Amino acid sequence: MTGQAAPRVGEFELIARHFTRPVRRAALGVGDDCALVNVSPGQQLAVSSDMLVEGRHFLSTVAPERLGHKALAVNLSDLAACGAEPLAFTLALALPRADEDWAAAFASGLLALADAHGIELVGGDTTAGPLNICITVMGQVPPGQALLRSGARPGDELWVSGTLGDARLALEVFRGSRFLGGALQGEAFEQVRRAMELPQPRVALGLALRGVASSAIDISDGLLGDLGHVLQRSRVGLQLCADQVPRSAVLAAQPLALQRLCTLAGGDDYELAFTAPAARHADVLAAGRAAGVAVTCCGQVTEWPGLQIIDAAGQALDAQAWRGFDHFA
Amino acid sequence: MTGQAAPRVGEFELIARHFTRPVRRAALGVGDDCALVNVSPGQQLAVSSDMLVEGRHFLSTVAPERLGHKALAVNLSDLAACGAEPLAFTLALALPRADEDWAAAFASGLLALADAHGIELVGGDTTAGPLNICITVMGQVPPGQALLRSGARPGDELWVSGTLGDARLALEVFRGSRFLGGALQGEAFEQVRRAMELPQPRVALGLALRGVASSAIDISDGLLGDLGHVLQRSRVGLQLCADQVPRSAVLAAQPLALQRLCTLAGGDDYELAFTAPAARHADVLAAGRAAGVAVTCCGQVTEWPGLQIIDAAGQALDAQAWRGFDHFA
Repeated sequence: MTGQAAPRVGEFELIARHFTRPVRRAALGVGDDCALVNVSPGQQLAVSSDMLVEGRHFLSTVAPERLGHKALAVNLSDLAACGAEPLAFTLALALPRADEDWAAAFASGLLALADAHGIELVGGDTTAGPLNICITVMGQVPPGQALLRSGARPGDELWVSGTLGDARLALEVFRGSRFLGGALQGEAFEQVRRAMELPQPRVALGLALRGVASSAIDISDGLLGDLGHVLQRSRVGLQLCADQVPRSAVLAAQPLALQRLCTLAGGDDYELAFTAPAARHADVLAAGRAAGVAVTCCGQVTEWPGLQIIDAAGQALDAQAWRGFDHFA
Repeated sequence: MTGQAAPRVGEFELIARHFTRPVRRAALGVGDDCALVNVSPGQQLAVSSDMLVEGRHFLSTVAPERLGHKALAVNLSDLAACGAEPLAFTLALALPRADEDWAAAFASGLLALADAHGIELVGGDTTAGPLNICITVMGQVPPGQALLRSGARPGDELWVSGTLGDARLALEVFRGSRFLGGALQGEAFEQVRRAMELPQPRVALGLALRGVASSAIDISDGLLGDLGHVLQRSRVGLQLCADQVPRSAVLAAQPLALQRLCTLAGGDDYELAFTAPAARHADVLAAGRAAGVAVTCCGQVTEWPGLQIIDAAGQALDAQAWRGFDHFA
């Protein structure tokens, strides 16, 4: 044994090296017992942790680059929903076996997204076990400026970023769903597959909505389910116009019933749903332009409790017809 | 659907409730997209993440209370090794099925240790999947005061807290090891089993060693393996007196070969190994007294590289005879 290495170098240490890079922003990165992250005075630390399990959160067929992207994206999406600026993240990874090619590809997708958001992997853990990915992301936000689920007020407008439902449409294709109106092939299929596998966390939008939005949540479990959390936390009601929920042209070409399932109860969208006072309508549009993402007003906050869903003609739809994406269903 | 709940409440939500308590120190706890933790001005955030997998890091026979304790303890031990003050933690948990009794017991062990260290569970994730526990703990330390693996200097003394090897001895008992010198029963067995299942993170000692120790690491993979990291990071060598490594009376009653295996390459000790200038010998002893944990000097830092192990008579022992506890062995 020399001073150059621990007495035994496991194969997984080789793999872990794919994730080790010099840190720039953090005071201390991978390689000690803890990472050290400088937090500016007058900032609150925002922390989110998500665990991804094969067969439950992703299909075994997904390319490891895309899985690396998505594992971080779903965590960044939580920061986005809080209006927090990303700082750093940790990764804990259980792998059934030491597969260096897989790890290299996973790391490349993961770190490319980290680079795009200017954040660093500052620590974590690698172990043998059934495939499991646990990322904890840290961000900062000035005290009192975080976007919370609890801030929606009657009269506020309800907004959604981007388009919803493509990720669920891709899942329906993989499942060979009977609800599909014809086969989905070529670029149309690739588009919805990208939506499922390469979600884009709306970090810039979350930051732009500080001081504008009254509440926000990221749409991970389906719009209706996630709006339920806003209702509960804000102690208000919502009227949602189902036909105004934004969707891609590919999804809009599907039967209306499938469109509604995918947009209202799809899951895995990682867009933001947020509320803002009607007087801030133009500011919300400006925030969307500044962040380079479409924002669509599709409802309003009501004083009476519950979630009322209406169609384009103003007719009430039965909310029970759709259910939030439940990971334990 | 009402404003009181998401459209579908999974069984796992019931379980997650066992972990939900009002936060005191955090600005915002469980229930939004991110936790918010106030960090004092002039502090660095210390972050550590560990993942525990059944059959790899714990036996399926362990009581869930003890598993909850240990899952947090191994993370707190990383903070202790940095001299960081614990602030908050997140928990991501994959469970094969919704078992409320198990979750309640796990939470009780976990939160009792959190209470003992004055920290709160501020967020996380619960999902279905093979049993996997991922905890990320955050702490704070004033800039420049963290204990790092890289600070050991020639002439420093090498110290170890508590006693080493009992956890490994328990594992040997569970394995029915042929190295055991006679059966281990009654209170002797319970003692070593507690060492394996209920490690005590040396947080108070880590804090007391700020400004005293020159380097520190927590002993999780076996003393020799972990000292290898200190050697490598500090670019120094070490002379370790194997027979001075502290051990319990129960372990000391076992054959010498087994004592050495357990103390030098045992793993799962969660004691601290640290170095300090010889001139600070009395200060180290005072830090141990202040923290209520024994500290034992068992070697010194050398200029020549490598780890030299000697016995009580000063004879060199072969370091290759023991190997660090490798989770991928």
